[in-house]
Amino acid sequence: MSADIVNPKDGLEPDVIDPAFALHRGGKMEVRATVPVRDADDLSLAYTPGVAKVCGAIAEQPELVADYTWKSQVVAVVTDGSAVLGLGDIGPEASLPVMEGKAILFKQFGGVDAVPLALDGHSTDEIVDTVARLAPSFGGVNLEDIAAPRCFEIEARLKERLDIPVFHDDQHGTAIVTLAALRNAARLHGRALGELRAVVSGAGAAGVAIARILTEAGIGDVVVCDRKGVVSADREDLTDVKRELAGFTNAAGRTGSLESALAGADVFIGVSGGTVPEEAVAGMAEGAFVFAMANPNPEVHPDVARKYASVVATGRSDYPNQINNVLAFPGVFAGALQVRATDITEGMKLAAADALAAVVADELAPDRVIPSPFDERVAPAVTAAVAKQARAEGVARA
Amino acid sequence: MSADIVNPKDGLEPDVIDPAFALHRGGKMEVRATVPVRDADDLSLAYTPGVAKVCGAIAEQPELVADYTWKSQVVAVVTDGSAVLGLGDIGPEASLPVMEGKAILFKQFGGVDAVPLALDGHSTDEIVDTVARLAPSFGGVNLEDIAAPRCFEIEARLKERLDIPVFHDDQHGTAIVTLAALRNAARLHGRALGELRAVVSGAGAAGVAIARILTEAGIGDVVVCDRKGVVSADREDLTDVKRELAGFTNAAGRTGSLESALAGADVFIGVSGGTVPEEAVAGMAEGAFVFAMANPNPEVHPDVARKYASVVATGRSDYPNQINNVLAFPGVFAGALQVRATDITEGMKLAAADALAAVVADELAPDRVIPSPFDERVAPAVTAAVAKQARAEGVARA
Repeated sequence: MSADIVNPKDGLEPDVIDPAFALHRGGKMEVRATVPVRDADDLSLAYTPGVAKVCGAIAEQPELVADYTWKSQVVAVVTDGSAVLGLGDIGPEASLPVMEGKAILFKQFGGVDAVPLALDGHSTDEIVDTVARLAPSFGGVNLEDIAAPRCFEIEARLKERLDIPVFHDDQHGTAIVTLAALRNAARLHGRALGELRAVVSGAGAAGVAIARILTEAGIGDVVVCDRKGVVSADREDLTDVKRELAGFTNAAGRTGSLESALAGADVFIGVSGGTVPEEAVAGMAEGAFVFAMANPNPEVHPDVARKYASVVATGRSDYPNQINNVLAFPGVFAGALQVRATDITEGMKLAAADALAAVVADELAPDRVIPSPFDERVAPAVTAAVAKQARAEGVARA
Repeated sequence: MSADIVNPKDGLEPDVIDPAFALHRGGKMEVRATVPVRDADDLSLAYTPGVAKVCGAIAEQPELVADYTWKSQVVAVVTDGSAVLGLGDIGPEASLPVMEGKAILFKQFGGVDAVPLALDGHSTDEIVDTVARLAPSFGGVNLEDIAAPRCFEIEARLKERLDIPVFHDDQHGTAIVTLAALRNAARLHGRALGELRAVVSGAGAAGVAIARILTEAGIGDVVVCDRKGVVSADREDLTDVKRELAGFTNAAGRTGSLESALAGADVFIGVSGGTVPEEAVAGMAEGAFVFAMANPNPEVHPDVARKYASVVATGRSDYPNQINNVLAFPGVFAGALQVRATDITEGMKLAAADALAAVVADELAPDRVIPSPFDERVAPAVTAAVAKQARAEGVARA
């Protein structure tokens, strides 16, 4: 990372050197009143004495908090700064620009208010307790950039403990968009999901969630690889999460390297940041799908991948088929908040992926299996699908 | 309180019945982006990949967080909902309308962004730990409506632990505005503060802080009364806070009832919510000042107080001389944030009171010892005074 960093100690203000610094000066967001506070009459309604009636009513009927405060439209964007972009454990303050960015994307794409909360405290207990104590003020919790494997336990414990949706975007946002792209790639080439064999490189937050959603969506065979190769039940070095992963993936009981797993595979999904040799890509099945999503350096360069694959996707905005979480999280939360859902279920994630895929179902092409992040049809479609599914599953409160 | 509450179960929507409910529907605030997020170029600066450089720079030089995020302009408005207005311990959700109100007043009057954080968790340890973990994301902490006596320990521990300003508005906001009004009342009538004898009714958050700031400002004799009468060192029922109070007030060693303390006193300051008999007011010194600040029912009705006192103030907006915290907290935080103060010191509070008093120093009249909450000169004057004092005391970082 240090090569990219402008060090203000060198003399020049970073703003002068790089437009990203100029844009970030003073931060990227603000809070605004949505009601007038111009005179004593306004104040007597928005603050004392008028506000006391509203407080009293909520004290008597707690569910009114959703109608008469911003709780039901605001999401906490929570991190401990331990796994920020490709920068790693840079701590809470240094993670704030990403969390503010996330917050403004929530608003821009989903109409959802969001507040960046970068926490000082890394332990699972500390993060769970802190977020649980904050829950009365928020309609949902978006966990962000928390290192694996504790991100899994934090999310699981918060989902268990809270009656508002908890969603770790690095896991589920990525998984939803990946599944949507894969659905459309399969649709484009007349393939059934059940006949596909997929290899996921990376067993961190994104890899685990992708393996799960692909399995739920009915992909025939999913194999996950970590740095040591295929995650298989016979390995003795597995964490709890990887052991669980081995339990629901790799039905064929493969072992060995990523390269060996790729031989004859239909789908490659890279969320590892490593490099896959061209020979391994060449050895995949005819018409394979290669989603090399590591940023900024895809596991397989898209120009190389295109030599062998029928559909290529990356995480980058300068190549076609960008797997970008902003296609999912704004609509997922907007839908969940709209119906005051108590949870974001696996069914709601699958519904989000289907809705996202459907946006471009009539426009499919090898370079267009997923919509652009700026496609205005996306968020409304995902919002509606998520809200509908929440109602169908009985997790909606409105 | 229940007489005032509209119960939606009765059939009619509360919005129909009361404009306060209509105003509160959907909450009173929102989050907004202050930078454009319209296209891929915007996104590449405000989010990945551009944001990574800013994160990396902060990781290397932590103080840059103040320049390149909203941290240095945003305050957490923190409560546990345990002492909300006159409603008492109504819990975090029911307190949210007050916290949102506070947040929009911060913005409207001080240009300060503020986020309502109503916490589930009452114990001192829980609140202190939670706020400490949140500190990386905020430039300051405004504690609000937390019950005495734990509010004192929570504030003290957080001030000790954090390098950002912590301010319990129920204490210090009230104290600052009270002192400002008292300064002007004394100025109007040619009295020196040192010759005044003041009686404070109420030994909760506001009473303790008022006693402290009056003592620091040089009021000759300050006596505080709780429900059992004068807080004096010989009492054996005192909490730690009241014992400390007895140590720095009541130099004359008075004992007995509030009424007896008022005999011949120059100043009455009511923050108790009780009622003071007319005879006790009649027995105060000639030309006394009566600040009966309980809401909505002043300890002495202003019409009664006027029969005996030369200056009367209340907490109500429908009488002259309203002691309203909004005259203090927006400017106090704006000033502290402007210079990135590490603390809000007693000196900064005194400076705020002086600046607030000075705003109307040339317009003084018995009904004008304190500016209107909508006087636009107030916040800039308080902001400048607080920032200057922070620099003078060496607690400023910018």
